[in-house]
Amino acid sequence: MRDAYHDELDSLSDKLVEMTRLVRSAMARATTALLDADLRLSEEVISADEQVNKLETEIEETVFELMARQQPVAGDLRTVITALRMSGDLERMGDLAVHIAKTARRRHPETAVPPELQATVLEMGQIAERMIAKAGSVIASKDVDLGMELDADDDQMDRLHRRLFDILLSPKWKHGVEPAVDITLAGRYFERFADHAVHVAENVVYLATGQRPQEIIDTP
Amino acid sequence: MRDAYHDELDSLSDKLVEMTRLVRSAMARATTALLDADLRLSEEVISADEQVNKLETEIEETVFELMARQQPVAGDLRTVITALRMSGDLERMGDLAVHIAKTARRRHPETAVPPELQATVLEMGQIAERMIAKAGSVIASKDVDLGMELDADDDQMDRLHRRLFDILLSPKWKHGVEPAVDITLAGRYFERFADHAVHVAENVVYLATGQRPQEIIDTP
Repeated sequence: MRDAYHDELDSLSDKLVEMTRLVRSAMARATTALLDADLRLSEEVISADEQVNKLETEIEETVFELMARQQPVAGDLRTVITALRMSGDLERMGDLAVHIAKTARRRHPETAVPPELQATVLEMGQIAERMIAKAGSVIASKDVDLGMELDADDDQMDRLHRRLFDILLSPKWKHGVEPAVDITLAGRYFERFADHAVHVAENVVYLATGQRPQEIIDTP
Repeated sequence: MRDAYHDELDSLSDKLVEMTRLVRSAMARATTALLDADLRLSEEVISADEQVNKLETEIEETVFELMARQQPVAGDLRTVITALRMSGDLERMGDLAVHIAKTARRRHPETAVPPELQATVLEMGQIAERMIAKAGSVIASKDVDLGMELDADDDQMDRLHRRLFDILLSPKWKHGVEPAVDITLAGRYFERFADHAVHVAENVVYLATGQRPQEIIDTP
């Protein structure tokens, strides 16, 4: 039987997983809204972000309560502080999905993504969605191997981000400055989203093993 | 006479102030490097970032040590957790200065900033530098009024950011896509830098008053 203290620690983990679920859904909708110039979907993403922020506040309150009342040490202390950090990353990822949705809304009824970039942007959105889904599984399962996969996903995101610029900056680009500005910003949002997902997974791996993912790979 | 515990709390504040000093210097150099296409200055900013990261790690270690050994409660607990968050913001601000320096380096020997944007970019850099300097003073002095000034600075940054886009997207823009992409990214870096500075100051105001700056303004 668990005591109230450990129930509260578990509730932190549940709330973090719930945040990843909301952020995953936001990213999926934001990408579709961007590709389809769908105003309704954009608005959904923008208004749903409040729930993400609310969860972050709840986690923060639980953490302060736990620390004040239980004064956790060693491993539990690290778990609690790490939950606070992960909730900050996840809140920021929600904001980035909102920024993508706002890019879609700003250009509506036009699409912000010219045809030659649709496949690349779609793939960036899919990787972003996969990464946040994996981060959620990693938080729930403490699966270190899955946590390490996010580094490879992030490399793939970086490759797509470079391809985006190659297309934007090629002499064949014929859409002018305005779509280039939109795509530059959207690309940056996807890339930062991936960085935060890596950071979340790293924190779980670190809690579980005491090592950062790169150190595990480097160990012979 | 202070005890070792309070000495350690003070050392956290000193290290945060030192981080703001390094980040302020990095931002000043990065802006000048961007405007002057100065490769040496860019390299300086990039290599100096290691010191900022080192201070963040030191703060993190001190925080964990303090919490494990002293189990601070109430106000002290909040001070310690807030120090951890502020060090995260300051570390990120160092990264943003590095991104600006790398934009300068990527375009060298050309300048990334066309003449009609030099005044706006200069002003964004100056506001960024002023904001991090103020954040440092706020940490050192717990001066709530100075902390509240950062909101107005941030509004000014947002106005300049919009002016940047107005110039980029005007029919008179004749520099094509590549400088537009550089400027879009640099503008984003300045703007995020300002957001983090506001966040740092907010944390100090919150510690000192128990209220967020906006709540203080809203209170009749």
